[in-house]
Amino acid sequence: MAAAPLLAVLPLLLLAAFLPSPTAAAHSSNYPKPFPPVAPLHLQALRHQHHQRARSSLDAKYIAAAANSTAAKPFTKHFFPQELDHFTFTPNSSMVFYQKYLVNDTFWRRPGGKQPAGPVFVYTGNEGDIEWFATNTGFMFDVAPKFGALLVFIEHRFYGESKPFGNDSYKSPETLGYLTSTQALADFAILITSLKQNLSAEAAPVVVFGGSYGGMLASWFRLKYPHVAIGALASSAPILQFDYITPWTSFYDAVSQDYKSESLNCFNVIKATWDVLVERGSNDTGLLELSKMFRACKTVKSVYSFQNWLWTAFTYTAMVDYPTPANFLENLPAYPVKEMCKIIDRFPASADIVDKAFTAASLYYNYTGSETCFQLEDEDDPHGLSGWQWQACTEMIMPMSISNQSMFPPSEFDYNDRSDDCFVTWGVRPRPHWITTEYGGYKIDKVLKRFGSNIIFSNGMRDPWSRGGVLKNISSNIIALVTEKGAHHLDFRSETKDDPEWVIEQRRQEVQIIQGWIDQYHQDMAEMSS
Amino acid sequence: MAAAPLLAVLPLLLLAAFLPSPTAAAHSSNYPKPFPPVAPLHLQALRHQHHQRARSSLDAKYIAAAANSTAAKPFTKHFFPQELDHFTFTPNSSMVFYQKYLVNDTFWRRPGGKQPAGPVFVYTGNEGDIEWFATNTGFMFDVAPKFGALLVFIEHRFYGESKPFGNDSYKSPETLGYLTSTQALADFAILITSLKQNLSAEAAPVVVFGGSYGGMLASWFRLKYPHVAIGALASSAPILQFDYITPWTSFYDAVSQDYKSESLNCFNVIKATWDVLVERGSNDTGLLELSKMFRACKTVKSVYSFQNWLWTAFTYTAMVDYPTPANFLENLPAYPVKEMCKIIDRFPASADIVDKAFTAASLYYNYTGSETCFQLEDEDDPHGLSGWQWQACTEMIMPMSISNQSMFPPSEFDYNDRSDDCFVTWGVRPRPHWITTEYGGYKIDKVLKRFGSNIIFSNGMRDPWSRGGVLKNISSNIIALVTEKGAHHLDFRSETKDDPEWVIEQRRQEVQIIQGWIDQYHQDMAEMSS
Repeated sequence: MAAAPLLAVLPLLLLAAFLPSPTAAAHSSNYPKPFPPVAPLHLQALRHQHHQRARSSLDAKYIAAAANSTAAKPFTKHFFPQELDHFTFTPNSSMVFYQKYLVNDTFWRRPGGKQPAGPVFVYTGNEGDIEWFATNTGFMFDVAPKFGALLVFIEHRFYGESKPFGNDSYKSPETLGYLTSTQALADFAILITSLKQNLSAEAAPVVVFGGSYGGMLASWFRLKYPHVAIGALASSAPILQFDYITPWTSFYDAVSQDYKSESLNCFNVIKATWDVLVERGSNDTGLLELSKMFRACKTVKSVYSFQNWLWTAFTYTAMVDYPTPANFLENLPAYPVKEMCKIIDRFPASADIVDKAFTAASLYYNYTGSETCFQLEDEDDPHGLSGWQWQACTEMIMPMSISNQSMFPPSEFDYNDRSDDCFVTWGVRPRPHWITTEYGGYKIDKVLKRFGSNIIFSNGMRDPWSRGGVLKNISSNIIALVTEKGAHHLDFRSETKDDPEWVIEQRRQEVQIIQGWIDQYHQDMAEMSS
Repeated sequence: MAAAPLLAVLPLLLLAAFLPSPTAAAHSSNYPKPFPPVAPLHLQALRHQHHQRARSSLDAKYIAAAANSTAAKPFTKHFFPQELDHFTFTPNSSMVFYQKYLVNDTFWRRPGGKQPAGPVFVYTGNEGDIEWFATNTGFMFDVAPKFGALLVFIEHRFYGESKPFGNDSYKSPETLGYLTSTQALADFAILITSLKQNLSAEAAPVVVFGGSYGGMLASWFRLKYPHVAIGALASSAPILQFDYITPWTSFYDAVSQDYKSESLNCFNVIKATWDVLVERGSNDTGLLELSKMFRACKTVKSVYSFQNWLWTAFTYTAMVDYPTPANFLENLPAYPVKEMCKIIDRFPASADIVDKAFTAASLYYNYTGSETCFQLEDEDDPHGLSGWQWQACTEMIMPMSISNQSMFPPSEFDYNDRSDDCFVTWGVRPRPHWITTEYGGYKIDKVLKRFGSNIIFSNGMRDPWSRGGVLKNISSNIIALVTEKGAHHLDFRSETKDDPEWVIEQRRQEVQIIQGWIDQYHQDMAEMSS
């Protein structure tokens, strides 16, 4: 049970930071700018709808194994002493904190045998407790036996149990300032190098894996630390969602396209809902009526809460539009976007469109039917995961606008608004061009055509994040694997008996390519230095 | 005149940090450990012998141009606002300092014409005032017209006029902590990106150049920032002089080999000198006599000063064993090691060996014959260049021992001694494995065989630093250019009428390879994105 709320919070963390102009939304009733109507940035991370129901049992085998029972977890937990700041030698820099990592050596072909040691597969942790990522990356467990691989999952600094300043870690820029992607990558490099030494496995090749922000880290890690990792599998990694590389409207256009592809009526109903909602919610009577329609546990105070509740459902359902029943963000049936649109289309044309949208969105929040009411406005931070909001106020400036063509109310990303919000909330201003300066991104196909190797960028086009990903092969060994029907790092999920052929094939290709890297590595190592 | 002392201080900076156990030497009279007998680490940077003579006019054309007259300098001076810390967002991190850079646009084919804009050739500054490096890298000026290149020389943070905290910059780890190679590389990336934007030259390819530590930075820059620089020419860059990659004795073995290759007698005389010196200098009478023999301006107080004076002459003459007369460290004739050995060999076998060694070393300090006496013990820091000592106490741990086979007294590098010295002197302890973790180095031929491209590592084997360099081709486009008779970044010096064919050929190859990178770049850019 303990892990369940995390499931809903995490990917939202990644997304929430890109909402246009959130602060103004919390304080203004001028519709339609800005949308969606959300709390100040620092609260966005906490936007988890606490459902008053008993969660159904988790369906994936490793998720099950990783639930509350310690004994059943398929990994052991360790802590590594890590220096606070790898890039300066100021007095603070050598402060040590303990970084959590998880290990599964069940399948590992250890060094010292007749065959070379099996590879080390490292998950480069993203913005949350690493146990959550480990339990949601069944793919690594599924393929480990074939490779004889050691599995290591490293928690990202400032998340989970890897908080350098304990409960004070999120207090101010004095502490949070050390939460950056570059420091995280150096953490990974140091930990992996040390771990291999301790295991006498210096010769074992390392492959890094990551999904979403973790996938960004995995691909950047291969590019910056080729001497540590021989390759990277970056799943649903929107490394091009920065600056002016990817059109700012592409994310919400992609969400909208998912719905439009199922039914034009579905798209039109959702698109028309926002204005109607605002009109009806303009006074207390309206809010009370809407609260009843939305089965709110408490009367809702702001019409933006309804909008946000719907926005969350439609957007995240697009991200996790998986071809099989899954419980990643919420318990959902296979192809949940199609199911939502079926719900809308089943209504008579004359029915209340807000009711249509509400009923569709309820699929996201209440597929199992166990909810008696919904908490639309209660938000807290039970897991201390708000670090992503800091990251979105410093390095991770991914501009997102909403176009007229989308099913959401149009809005423009305004960098100055973001910067001011960040300054008010965190006392920090972003460096909007830092990511592209440090990691590149512009003309990536030209830059990496003759530089670097051994990266797989996998994306599913149902996932709106795919639009900020690498979707075409860059070279013979920097590869894009794209599935038209795939969703947010679908390939990383545990295999199930219902998996369609195209995802089986995608995973098969990934295994084959990674095997090629490992074979090549051993072949190169066996050759005399030239 | 102003630039002259810099000439002698800089390369010494790079070397001095690697002397074994220097602190103990200053306080101990137990011969033979440790050698050479030098002041505490923080004084080593200042080890410049102030000669009491008028310097002869500088010989290279650009050095002449860069002398005191501002009007004659072949570059304009600029300052760029740079943030103090690129890898954190602590309150200090966004403090702005002004980084100096020099520009020569005489030869630049500007954007907007019929042909594509000429390339941007950037010198990645090392441990000193950038004007010194600009005036000693005549190669870039020599080849700029052929390429239509813009020349940019960027000063390394904490050197020259790029001190973030002004005169307080070297005060403590609170300020010096921001002097690291990673910050310097990020400075370069940010400055180059911004400069290209300001010049509307986004499409112009950038090639980075660097010699010695600057060469290390250039090669690392290409590896870490391939989206900013299309290639790097790293001259005499000892990127493998870390950890256990290169044998610790190789540097002094190489110095010794230079002398042995000229004459076994020369080698033997120098090798025998150290013990004799210590014996004679064991009392005040002996020190007085030695002071007279060494033509010391003031009576020398420690016998280690004589040893150090000789050590400096023999070691640095090996580094700058150029095939033409040059004034890089000191005014010297062509092939100065050969000349020194001729001096020794001309003595009758029965002559005083200390006198032999002194007379040979005088070639280094007094080739022009203008010195009336030598300052053997006065050291100061007129140019504020001691930053390298900090770097040698933090990141740049290049272990060096002296073997029995060398012509110097044997000694062993002791990491704990270094660490303790650093703690006493600077209040900081090194991270001895950081460089190899951040930049790699182990098995570099395997790691880069299928990763990265467009780097030239050039080395001359007379230069003892060559032993820590990349001496063999790694791939078809990570190339080693080695000359048997070359010395410390000889290829970067201005062409002269006396250049031997092999250095002309080396430079010709460098130009050809760089032209290939630029042609390839334009060809790739002209192709449609695939």
